[in-house]
Amino acid sequence: MKSEIIAVGTELLLGNIVNTNAQYLSQKLAEIGIDVYYNLVVGDNMQRLIDTIKTSLCRSDLIITSGGLGPTADDLTKEGISEALGLKLLPDSASIKKIEAIFKSMGRPMTENNIKQGYIPEDAVILENNNGTAPGVLIEKDGKIIIMLPGPPKELYPMFEDKVLPYLRTKVHSTIKSRMLRVIGVGESAAEDMLKEIINNQTNPTLAPYAKDGEVHLRITAKSDKTEEADRLIDQMEEKVKIILGENIYGHDEESLEEVVLKLLQEKKMTISLAESCTGGLIANRLTDVPGASASLICGVISYSNASKINILGVSEDTISKYGAVSSQTAEEMAYGVKRINGTDIGLSITGIAGPDGGSAEKPVGLCYIGVALGDKVMVHKLIFNGNRKKIKWNSSSKALDLLRRELLQTKK
Amino acid sequence: MKSEIIAVGTELLLGNIVNTNAQYLSQKLAEIGIDVYYNLVVGDNMQRLIDTIKTSLCRSDLIITSGGLGPTADDLTKEGISEALGLKLLPDSASIKKIEAIFKSMGRPMTENNIKQGYIPEDAVILENNNGTAPGVLIEKDGKIIIMLPGPPKELYPMFEDKVLPYLRTKVHSTIKSRMLRVIGVGESAAEDMLKEIINNQTNPTLAPYAKDGEVHLRITAKSDKTEEADRLIDQMEEKVKIILGENIYGHDEESLEEVVLKLLQEKKMTISLAESCTGGLIANRLTDVPGASASLICGVISYSNASKINILGVSEDTISKYGAVSSQTAEEMAYGVKRINGTDIGLSITGIAGPDGGSAEKPVGLCYIGVALGDKVMVHKLIFNGNRKKIKWNSSSKALDLLRRELLQTKK
Repeated sequence: MKSEIIAVGTELLLGNIVNTNAQYLSQKLAEIGIDVYYNLVVGDNMQRLIDTIKTSLCRSDLIITSGGLGPTADDLTKEGISEALGLKLLPDSASIKKIEAIFKSMGRPMTENNIKQGYIPEDAVILENNNGTAPGVLIEKDGKIIIMLPGPPKELYPMFEDKVLPYLRTKVHSTIKSRMLRVIGVGESAAEDMLKEIINNQTNPTLAPYAKDGEVHLRITAKSDKTEEADRLIDQMEEKVKIILGENIYGHDEESLEEVVLKLLQEKKMTISLAESCTGGLIANRLTDVPGASASLICGVISYSNASKINILGVSEDTISKYGAVSSQTAEEMAYGVKRINGTDIGLSITGIAGPDGGSAEKPVGLCYIGVALGDKVMVHKLIFNGNRKKIKWNSSSKALDLLRRELLQTKK
Repeated sequence: MKSEIIAVGTELLLGNIVNTNAQYLSQKLAEIGIDVYYNLVVGDNMQRLIDTIKTSLCRSDLIITSGGLGPTADDLTKEGISEALGLKLLPDSASIKKIEAIFKSMGRPMTENNIKQGYIPEDAVILENNNGTAPGVLIEKDGKIIIMLPGPPKELYPMFEDKVLPYLRTKVHSTIKSRMLRVIGVGESAAEDMLKEIINNQTNPTLAPYAKDGEVHLRITAKSDKTEEADRLIDQMEEKVKIILGENIYGHDEESLEEVVLKLLQEKKMTISLAESCTGGLIANRLTDVPGASASLICGVISYSNASKINILGVSEDTISKYGAVSSQTAEEMAYGVKRINGTDIGLSITGIAGPDGGSAEKPVGLCYIGVALGDKVMVHKLIFNGNRKKIKWNSSSKALDLLRRELLQTKK
């Protein structure tokens, strides 16, 4: 099946945003064995949109568009495609009611132009949008498939995963299956070096490493006529990789580090509290992104000032004046203190220098101490991270979660 | 001048990399007033490349390509464009000598295929590459301009800045400047409705709204022969928009909401502490992403459990058992409590139901109470947010920051 991806939006042609939707859709289509022949971007201009759609319809079987489904006058995707296909745009009462309900629940008046989002080309399938007002649209006509998705990634990704992917799988016959192994604690080039024997001799399945936000993701991809055979090939490859990388592999596919940590806490029926300084709430924020986090996470304290370390966490004034707020001793007392005041099984602490200011020769930007209090022990780890403020926050929060994960793997409760 | 940008490379169609070159080139062309009508990506395939170039030549005056100039067999850009234009590819001895010198300086043998990079279409201008082996190429033919740039951003950016931009400036006579106004508290369609008088009558400058993560961004774009005149036109338009949207405009260009809030806190020399429940540390995390946040943010408490609301923040047990953890009364006591224990000027609290579980008919998922304690008053706002867990967390954190911003604008200290 030949496909192309068309992003609609003048903001892309002005360079205001980068076309990450094209990358996302290209990856997803490649994974199920659909060839993408072109990625296109066209502005909010009716004639150029129609011309583009007509050209694409001549050469491809599947067209996926992103953007241009919103309420404003320059949202033209449905209009342009309906025109190119000779279809009428008709009001869909269920979609309009849903949009009205969204506005009502927000307590905001719905302006007239929002109704436009509930107009659907005749005979089209409506793809419900659970994360925004504009529904997506799927059309099958004259052997071609046209799928229109909303532009915001927060709306496009779940709509594609939940509605489009299952539909497209029914249209392709040879199976490509893939599984991602998520690795932390080993760099990309080190991982590639450790796995070079496998990578150099790969045929089916293949193994490809991707560096991602301080982690390495290893994609295993297998082709076969039969799903079970592809699964079996992937299982075999995963076993080989596991022998080499062991506990550095923390999860699969979309499973995040924070999900894995919470799952371990729940399995072991353990509670946790956090004392964050340099990460400023990022660890708590990552954990609370996971539904059900409240079963294990009792409390977080972002002790950004020395006073809050002393008054709330009970870190001793002496410790801070003698060793500094960024020290192994302070990390230890923070972890112990937050565990004690909340009565949790675990206290996780982090104190460090996120930069860009505040570093010195002795204590450079990027220096962090991470403490894990468990039972009557506190383990403190000293680390140095590179990069800008956000990168230091992110990578140190990942390291803290990973140290906790490894500790939990060793713990019996 | 009508232009389009063509990126050549199968790795883009597989989604292995994101097309940041297109964004960069789009921005740069917009800045000098060249309209970009299309961004295209085509794979390393001779026939599709030739078809694409021929289509683009029919409709545009300027074509800029990126990628496909390297030494390997699937680098086809020069070959495809020469074919489409009916030009011969000839060896350029100066370019070949330079490539040989680069390999010599690296102490590596030059393989035969590298000579291909020194072949240039007849009558073309060579754009020297100071950051890699493949030179760029500029062709003027039959009133059209075709510019081929290497794919790696480290080579493309400086080549564009140093060689292409000065050349293109001689071809255009007007400047395009733009400014983004960042708006919160008004939806995209409502903003467009409020501004419809301006939008319907716009010529120069233009005004375009974009929805972004619970905010609306308004781009004002002006064209003029003179930079100062473009700036003046933008200033005038901003004034008009300000009369309509007032305090809903919180910032300009890349300025984030959290940056604006911290700037106000610093101007007013006020300190703040946070008591977060449903946002789980996201407000603290957003504020601490801004360098220097520690001057104003003293402490955050993520009181995820009732016990931590009571023990750390001093919320009364009675209040929670009578009104619930998600209530106006609890939000009030959280804001007051966190302000008191940290001795800050402001206490900001939020308690709500982020979902997906935990909602009821009376207290649905998305219900949030936000408290702002300032002086001896606590103001509590009740709100309902839509979407999944992450969206509820994000939008409620934005609302809390915005309520604080509006409060600070009214406050004299």
